[in-house]
Amino acid sequence: MEVLKRRAFSLWPPFYRSRAAFFTTKDYSAVASTQTLCSRTESQNREAFRQAVVNTLERRLFYIPSFKIYGGVAGLYDYGPPGCAVKANVLAFWRQHFVLEENMLEVDCPCVTPGIVLEASGHVDKFTDLMVKDEKTGTCHRADHLLKDFCKDKLEKDPGLSAEKVAELRHVLAVLDDFSADELGAKIKEYGITAPDTKNTLSDPYPFNLMFQTSIGPSGSSPGYMRPETAQGIFVNFKDLYYYNGNKLPFAAAQIGQAFRNEISPRQGLLRVREFTLAEIEHFVDPEDKSFAKFSDVSDLELYMFPREDQMAEQPARRISIGEAVSQGIVNNETLGYFIGRVYMFLTQLGIDKDRLRFRQHLENEMAHYSVDCWDAEIESSYGWIECVGIADRSAYDLHAHTGKSRVPLVAFEKYQQPREVEKLVIVPVKKELGLAFKGNHKMVVEALEAMGNKEAMEMKASLEAKGEAEFHVCRLNEVVTIKSNMLSISTEKKKEHQRVFTPSVIEPSFGIGRIIYCLYEHSFYTRPSKDGDEQVNVFRFPPLVAPIKCTVFPLVQNQQYEEVAKQIAKSLTAFGISYKIDVTGTSIGKRYARTDELGVPFAVTVDSSSSVTVRERDSKKQIRVNVDEVAPVVKQLTDGVRTWTDVLSRFPTHSS
Amino acid sequence: MEVLKRRAFSLWPPFYRSRAAFFTTKDYSAVASTQTLCSRTESQNREAFRQAVVNTLERRLFYIPSFKIYGGVAGLYDYGPPGCAVKANVLAFWRQHFVLEENMLEVDCPCVTPGIVLEASGHVDKFTDLMVKDEKTGTCHRADHLLKDFCKDKLEKDPGLSAEKVAELRHVLAVLDDFSADELGAKIKEYGITAPDTKNTLSDPYPFNLMFQTSIGPSGSSPGYMRPETAQGIFVNFKDLYYYNGNKLPFAAAQIGQAFRNEISPRQGLLRVREFTLAEIEHFVDPEDKSFAKFSDVSDLELYMFPREDQMAEQPARRISIGEAVSQGIVNNETLGYFIGRVYMFLTQLGIDKDRLRFRQHLENEMAHYSVDCWDAEIESSYGWIECVGIADRSAYDLHAHTGKSRVPLVAFEKYQQPREVEKLVIVPVKKELGLAFKGNHKMVVEALEAMGNKEAMEMKASLEAKGEAEFHVCRLNEVVTIKSNMLSISTEKKKEHQRVFTPSVIEPSFGIGRIIYCLYEHSFYTRPSKDGDEQVNVFRFPPLVAPIKCTVFPLVQNQQYEEVAKQIAKSLTAFGISYKIDVTGTSIGKRYARTDELGVPFAVTVDSSSSVTVRERDSKKQIRVNVDEVAPVVKQLTDGVRTWTDVLSRFPTHSS
Repeated sequence: MEVLKRRAFSLWPPFYRSRAAFFTTKDYSAVASTQTLCSRTESQNREAFRQAVVNTLERRLFYIPSFKIYGGVAGLYDYGPPGCAVKANVLAFWRQHFVLEENMLEVDCPCVTPGIVLEASGHVDKFTDLMVKDEKTGTCHRADHLLKDFCKDKLEKDPGLSAEKVAELRHVLAVLDDFSADELGAKIKEYGITAPDTKNTLSDPYPFNLMFQTSIGPSGSSPGYMRPETAQGIFVNFKDLYYYNGNKLPFAAAQIGQAFRNEISPRQGLLRVREFTLAEIEHFVDPEDKSFAKFSDVSDLELYMFPREDQMAEQPARRISIGEAVSQGIVNNETLGYFIGRVYMFLTQLGIDKDRLRFRQHLENEMAHYSVDCWDAEIESSYGWIECVGIADRSAYDLHAHTGKSRVPLVAFEKYQQPREVEKLVIVPVKKELGLAFKGNHKMVVEALEAMGNKEAMEMKASLEAKGEAEFHVCRLNEVVTIKSNMLSISTEKKKEHQRVFTPSVIEPSFGIGRIIYCLYEHSFYTRPSKDGDEQVNVFRFPPLVAPIKCTVFPLVQNQQYEEVAKQIAKSLTAFGISYKIDVTGTSIGKRYARTDELGVPFAVTVDSSSSVTVRERDSKKQIRVNVDEVAPVVKQLTDGVRTWTDVLSRFPTHSS
Repeated sequence: MEVLKRRAFSLWPPFYRSRAAFFTTKDYSAVASTQTLCSRTESQNREAFRQAVVNTLERRLFYIPSFKIYGGVAGLYDYGPPGCAVKANVLAFWRQHFVLEENMLEVDCPCVTPGIVLEASGHVDKFTDLMVKDEKTGTCHRADHLLKDFCKDKLEKDPGLSAEKVAELRHVLAVLDDFSADELGAKIKEYGITAPDTKNTLSDPYPFNLMFQTSIGPSGSSPGYMRPETAQGIFVNFKDLYYYNGNKLPFAAAQIGQAFRNEISPRQGLLRVREFTLAEIEHFVDPEDKSFAKFSDVSDLELYMFPREDQMAEQPARRISIGEAVSQGIVNNETLGYFIGRVYMFLTQLGIDKDRLRFRQHLENEMAHYSVDCWDAEIESSYGWIECVGIADRSAYDLHAHTGKSRVPLVAFEKYQQPREVEKLVIVPVKKELGLAFKGNHKMVVEALEAMGNKEAMEMKASLEAKGEAEFHVCRLNEVVTIKSNMLSISTEKKKEHQRVFTPSVIEPSFGIGRIIYCLYEHSFYTRPSKDGDEQVNVFRFPPLVAPIKCTVFPLVQNQQYEEVAKQIAKSLTAFGISYKIDVTGTSIGKRYARTDELGVPFAVTVDSSSSVTVRERDSKKQIRVNVDEVAPVVKQLTDGVRTWTDVLSRFPTHSS
């Protein structure tokens, strides 16, 4: 559907656009975060725009602060009727665009998760934020947020800062995401940062686990958590899913569901919440072949990419085709590239502005050590650039972790046409010596030695032969130990193998559905003067795919005959599966249009005779005249995308009111 | 779509059907539970049938025990790919059939719920089961289950029981759901019941709250729970939803989402689980007018109803039209009747056998004191009659409870055409006297007095005037106190009123989606001999609406030309939004059909030429010949229900293999 007068009366000044690529509120984008500073006018404009959007959203119940009559709970929101419909439409399209298109294996796992699963994934140990407490009131704050706010505030409001101080604060902003608890604590002390509201002194920072904890069963002895992501449910099912797929790679599994993070102090409204819907894909692939059969379908797509090097060099994001990005090695492999392209198509078809969408590569310090390459789809909003989709090549980490913990091998097989002779590593730990050396920890050392890869083992062998000992990092101990040559033997033997056994790599596109929807609201919102006068009308220019209600029906005037026709049309819309709203109040037609524009309803049917009626398109405000019988089929074609409004305009007589 | 040879080779013997109406495993159907005993052969047949269904479901990943590689967790299950698709189809149909059809206001609230909301609803105090502990191992058991099992087992396996003893045990089964902790404990002692596995002695029964508890935010001072139902999220939003609906009654709100119950010891496989999807409707209505505008749409529907009186008289369920049931006063009101009809249509369109579906009225002892009337849609399965949908007229209870706790009036208004003169009750508690009499409890007494309804107040007034005192039940104290005439004054005054302010009643259809799906599996399952020989093929006769995959595509033989055609068809199926599975293995065509029959795929496209192909219907096994271009449109029409298989059979040449 064509969209006229695009952002014609937007509150958001156009000059803002030119700086778009420099803004971010991401917590862990080190370089980008030095660029988060914008002028005060600009930030006031953003604030005003956001208020206009949020007021409309709250007034029309797109969302509601949860448990409002009890004072609400920070970070919890309900989707009201139009919001709920938008969400259902976004998820239905996600299923169509990803699951159906790629024949993905969709699963649906519980939110309640036993502790052991999240121990294996690392969440029990590491899914933490550093917290400080107000020493008098006990109120909790995120330590990094306080330091970040302090630095930004200083830089924005203190014009008398020396060049040296400016550089220092910018440096802190750039590196604070890497700070340890001690480093953060030291900076907070050094800058004299106190609790925001009370100005009381703060405790030292300490880690707070962000998972909601609970207990499974009545005995109290089985700790459980509300899952912080849906991915783990897929990983633990790898074996069954691989079998279901005929023991063939690649294949993808997908899951849509609730995830939970007990944020220390939620802020940024709908963007940082304690419960949210994730849609995650785990695409399992042979680590030796990350090509993608359908890559050519997306390779010509041009989109804004923001590679690591450009971020470090403080360059803006640049338009580049996915094909080029992969062939130049900017994006690590075809599979990652394919998903970047599909994510781009998904978001722009929903109505995200393609010029305010970029794919930002993670910096080295943002990525976990096992990650090969990560790209975030970031959408620009009044809060800055928001990470809405993460697309990560996580290598074999997750399957490895669960294999180790569960002792169930989560592996794939490649049958050789002919048996191959291979050198096979034989690692034999001498448990007695290891026991003497490492006492209670020796089991963990043994396990770590046995799990060594080829390269690591050969290096150790060389070192043991040369020096009689070798340094060795034991993950589970988080310690480097010294291994002596009497503690293990490493050798290789030749063997005939009929198949290769390997742990697949996983490429994970992970969608924060609520964030995407919020950004969509901002990108779809504009205002225009109402017909009646200088009052402004708020409009959401949702594409029909997303619109919570596809169509309104109202009689031009209150009159039984027209009401009958309206009801007849309503009935046929239901039969066609089209959501509609009927409005038989005597309110002026202009007001009724305004009400539905505010809900983003793309088409309005006005009954002004009993044989034919008018159909109005929301953004162009143009109207056509359609026979009563044809209304539902025409609206169905428009909302299904079978016909565009332009097609329809040329097929039916236009109507001017 | 027509279904041939219905249950032709079912494992389940037909004689079973005649006793169907007498079977139940419901926990709280007192009378019905005396009728749960069936012969051993019958129960073996059920067991065998269930095993056949469950084996197929597990093997084909309709579901997977959650976290299986870690040994699983009782009461938690994943939906694997076909199960997940069935669930998505059921939910999409639910939205179409209920939300869209009635223009319901759908909301989506978080699972994490602050304590105060569930205190108001009564869940914190009362959502408990009685538990006993194995005194040596600490293993927990549901007290009522142990007693029930004991009684049933005795009745089934001990032929030497005296008539007196049989009567006693039957009586216990009939009333045990009303037993207090003490009564249950006494019976367990009297019968010498011990722990099932260990035979150790058991503790006294004590209440265990079934909600998963957690803590919201980092301070540990805000207790929260994972919601045990979705309904509360709707009730707390009543005010906003009423406004959204133009301050008009009746209207319905709806919610689909996860709910959680920390069962003491889950059993019955997929039927009693710790996390499940609920779909709930809260239809708000003026308590003085529970008529329903569209009631005539369902009034002629005939279905099995099982009214309270028939249960008490040990009569079977009987077929009756909804119109009659309401006019005879069997069903309390039109709104309840309308939803019973719509639920019937929903379930039978999904594929639930209408002869194994009944609507059972709650007995007096099953209903909460505030409930007006409750009906359960029960579906017969190998476990007996399973409550899958509850349809309850809960009066104004929930809105009252939240009004009381939050102090936000959740009420509706009816504007009078002309002001009316009304007698208004004036209750003035004398706080000093009440304080002296009830000390720390006086506030609760005052609140309870102020909350008296008209009738109660006038009765008290009469009693105070006659006897100088009156008995008064204070809910929150759960105590009857004596009120003296110096403690309050009750009078009436005449007032002009311009509107009526009242708390709406709520009629609540609540759907256990997982239970419906499991029963659907059983009702859809049958076996037939395979083409190749005496091996049996398992088939799910899902209607296209429900089928996880609508269509399979396979080349008759491995050959590049056929594979190309298959891919072309696959592509057009995707474009039409039809889920399909392509199978290019060289397996025999019979085996490939068998594989897809087991997934309940209704249509199979076999490529045996490059111009036209065959389309086979799963249950009749008949085939037609269709041009390649027409395949996707034809399958689309079949799966959308626009055409039936019979239509299609007459339009296209049939094909015999």
